[in-house]
This record gives sequence, C-alpha cells and structure tokens, in this order.
Amino acid sequence: MDEDFADFKIGIAGLGLIGGSLAKAFHSAGFFVAGFDIGKSTVDEALNTGAINLGACTPSVLYNCDIVFVALYPEGIVPFVKENAAKFKRGAILIDCCGIKTRICESLYSANLNGLTFIGGHPMAGTESNGFSASFAELFSGASFILTPRPGEDDRILQTLDRLLCHVGFARTVVTTPQHHDRMIAFTSQLPHVIACAYVLSPSLPDHEGFSAGSFRDVSRVAHINPELWAQLFIDNKDALCTEIDLLIENLQGIRELAFSGDANSLKSILKKSRTATCGGANSRNTPV
Amino acid sequence: MDEDFADFKIGIAGLGLIGGSLAKAFHSAGFFVAGFDIGKSTVDEALNTGAINLGACTPSVLYNCDIVFVALYPEGIVPFVKENAAKFKRGAILIDCCGIKTRICESLYSANLNGLTFIGGHPMAGTESNGFSASFAELFSGASFILTPRPGEDDRILQTLDRLLCHVGFARTVVTTPQHHDRMIAFTSQLPHVIACAYVLSPSLPDHEGFSAGSFRDVSRVAHINPELWAQLFIDNKDALCTEIDLLIENLQGIRELAFSGDANSLKSILKKSRTATCGGANSRNTPV
Repeated sequence: MDEDFADFKIGIAGLGLIGGSLAKAFHSAGFFVAGFDIGKSTVDEALNTGAINLGACTPSVLYNCDIVFVALYPEGIVPFVKENAAKFKRGAILIDCCGIKTRICESLYSANLNGLTFIGGHPMAGTESNGFSASFAELFSGASFILTPRPGEDDRILQTLDRLLCHVGFARTVVTTPQHHDRMIAFTSQLPHVIACAYVLSPSLPDHEGFSAGSFRDVSRVAHINPELWAQLFIDNKDALCTEIDLLIENLQGIRELAFSGDANSLKSILKKSRTATCGGANSRNTPV
Repeated sequence: MDEDFADFKIGIAGLGLIGGSLAKAFHSAGFFVAGFDIGKSTVDEALNTGAINLGACTPSVLYNCDIVFVALYPEGIVPFVKENAAKFKRGAILIDCCGIKTRICESLYSANLNGLTFIGGHPMAGTESNGFSASFAELFSGASFILTPRPGEDDRILQTLDRLLCHVGFARTVVTTPQHHDRMIAFTSQLPHVIACAYVLSPSLPDHEGFSAGSFRDVSRVAHINPELWAQLFIDNKDALCTEIDLLIENLQGIRELAFSGDANSLKSILKKSRTATCGGANSRNTPV
C-alpha cells in the first residue's frame, strides 16, 4: 500500500454486492474498513468474515473515515448524504456507487454539505447475483471506476482516488460528466438488462434445455435481476434508456423485414455492418438501419 | 473407444469451425478421419495439423466412411447429399450440422438416396469466430447434439450415434422433429444473434470503452457474425424467427412504457417475472407483457 494511505480509514455504507465486495477488497489490501448496513445479520456476517473491522446498523461508524463509499440503492443516496453531512470527519470524501449520476449529482452538488466533498462514482462491475453473500474481493479486477466530479473539483482528490482504487483491482478511473455517464450507461448496461428481461419472457423459454448454448446463456444471464434496484435505475435514466430501446427496436425491425422478405444481399450487408462495428475499425460509427 | 468403433471411419465434409472441430475431436479420440473442403489451403492445414488422415478438395475421400458429417453452409447441404448419394459406402450414415432443419430434412427425407441414411443434426456449440483456424477439439465439451431423424428411423442407429458422439465430448443427443428444432433454435440461437447485431448498431457503440462491463460484452459478443452463414439461417427459418423478434419487441415496448411513465411497481413486477423465469420454477411459463 502507498505510504499516503497508511492511516487511511475506508468507510462503506451499504454492504450488498458492491459495498460488500469493496469492503472485502479494501480489507484484503490491508486497509482499515468500517461498514454500515441497516441489516443486523449482514453486519454480523461482514464482521465474521473479516470483511470489516468495525460495523453497525447506524452510520456512526463511518464518521471517522477518510473516504466513504455510499453503496446504497439510488433513492437512498441523496437523503443519506444530506442527513449525515455534518457528522463526517473534516475533509472526508464521499463517493456513491450507483448506476445513475445526473439526478444524484445535481442534487448533491447544489446542496450545502458542510465542507464535505461528494463525488459521483460508478464501479463498472457486477454480477447477476446480489447481497453481501454474493460479494467477493476480486469483483473489480480490471474494471474501470467512473467518476463524475463537480466542475472544477480539485485534481489532487481525483488523483488520490485513482491511486486508491488501483489497490483493489480497478484498472483505471474514467472522469466524465454525469450526463455523459448516464447516456453511455443507458447503452452499455441498462439496455443489456432490459434486453435480457424482455428475452426471457418468450413462451419458448421453459423448453430451452438441450437446445441452447453460449449465445442463449449470454443474452439471458442478467435477467436474474434485482427488481427493486433496476426499476429505480431504469426510471431515473428513462430519457436516455428509452432512446436506446427505440434505436434497438428500429434495428431489430430492420433485420426482421429483410429476413421476412428473403432479401439475402441486404441482410448480409447489415450483418457485415454489425460485424465491422464490433471490430472497432474505421467503419464502426454506425447509424441505425 | 468402444470396440464397435474400432474400424470406424469418420468423414467430414467442410472443414470450417464446426467441421474442423469435429475433425480435431474425432482425431484426438483415436478415430480415422477423412476430410474434404473446397479450399486447398484448408485441406493442407487440416492435414498438417493432424486433424485428418486423408483429405482432398473433392468429396471422394468420404465415400469409404461409415459416418459422414456434412458441415457445409445450409444452402450447400441438399445438393451435396443428392449429388453424392450413390457414391457412398453401403449403409453409410450422413448427418448435417447446420442450424436449420425443416427445409433440409423435408427435401432429403423425400428424396431417393440409394439406401443411404440421412439424419438431420445440429451440434449446439459454436463461437463468434469461424473457419478451420478457429476450430478446436474441445468445442463440443458438454454440449448437446440435436438429431431430427425421419419418423420411424431405426433406434439402433440413433443409439450408435449417441455413443459415438460421447467420444468427442457431447453430453447427450436430443431427438426431436425438424419443426420443433427450428422453433426452438429461432429463440435460443438465432434471436440472440439478431439482438447482438441490432444492439451494436447503436451510435453509442464507438464510445463504450471505460463504460462497459460484463453485460455489454455478453450481449454484443456474437455480433462478430459470419454474415453469409447467418443470412441463410435467418431467411431459412424466417417464420419462427420473425415470431420471436415480434414477441421480443412487444416485451421491450412493455418495459419501455413502464420506465417512461415512471410506474415503479409495475416495472418491478415485470422484472420479478423475468427473474423468476430464469430460475426455471413453476412460474417460468410466461406470456408477453
């Protein structure tokens, strides 16, 4: 560990899949980790597995930490930060970890947080499982951690975070605006989840055994979704998400029409366009068909 | 190897991803393998890598084989079998390996094949790459091999095939009708490929770096498609495929409307339905939302 971090205390609010994995990862890297969760059994489990040094069902264990990751459901983040802002250590940095940024950052960047630094964050990692029992220290290996700081945020803070997050396996931090984050996440994360959920609602699903292989597994995997969490994420980012769903439907209809009419040449031409797009070459900036 | 197969000769027509992998797998399992491909360089490569014992650019090397896997593009299968039927060894079994069965089986089950046994087949394995260079012996490990024999086909032949295919890693054979195969494959295999191709045509694709993780990788993986092959498959199975695309679009629109209107309870309820569906429980027989 960097010498800079020798006396660093990491706080984690919410010990679900993301918070639990952050706790395990920082603990494995030798950090002091305090954890808070509203579920007593979750706190007990986190203490018993050694993921945290100090835990409780109230946020008070976090007030002495240098950096606090707020790994709560989207709708809990703004109230949590506002209600506890005055109680944190002077100079503490709070980073949330949820999948939408505009609403949260707009609300917290315009609020009086008593000198606290809040930074919007989003670790680009997850699994189709949820809860502390699904968490593991290696979840973030090679992933990026997106940061959406307020305009003009102190560069040294962002550099510190970048170095800190490398200690738990992140490959890099990506700094962008909350708005660009939300537009990109609508495509890279929310849309695949919408697709998976829509896909498995086909009446053909129950008969798939023996007829399915890798492409079925891949497209259906994330349909094993946390409904509470993702309903919030989809609604919070509905404009960008609906734009992406509409584009997808337009492209699906394009392929459907060509298959239906038996126009092999035009169909091949679209499939070539898709293949080229995945190669990231010069032709990868496609428009809808 | 079973004693029954001690003098067995395996033939492979077409040494692409599937044919090449079958050749490598049977060769590794100790079988004599003859291979044919129209590409001389492919035959040379297969001979050099030891995937086949005997190869040529004409089908003649296959005429002495006991079982011949016809791993050609869909449109090449019927002409190949009809044109060569009279030349194969008496009692030889030919199995095709392509992703649609109704058109091929209807054509070949009503044809005079000079005593040859043709069985529709489909190994449920693949990758997003193609060609002999992408083939590997372990491709079929744990996969099912679907067989769509003519009604009343000799059970002993099907049992022999089942035992034979276990030697190269297949977990089991699944026997069904060509029509049921095509309906299921439209959902389990063709639809995920259509989805991937439509997905990557979003104008957001070129900017995904740093904003993407597992769900993006999974849904986009098979967009790196073989356009020639899949255009044939989509068109050959257009009725079943278009039905599945229409159901998917209906379900996508259902989720979109609930996100757009901010109806969190109804949205959660659909996402729960999707989650339950993937658990294969009693509630998994869903209807479109």
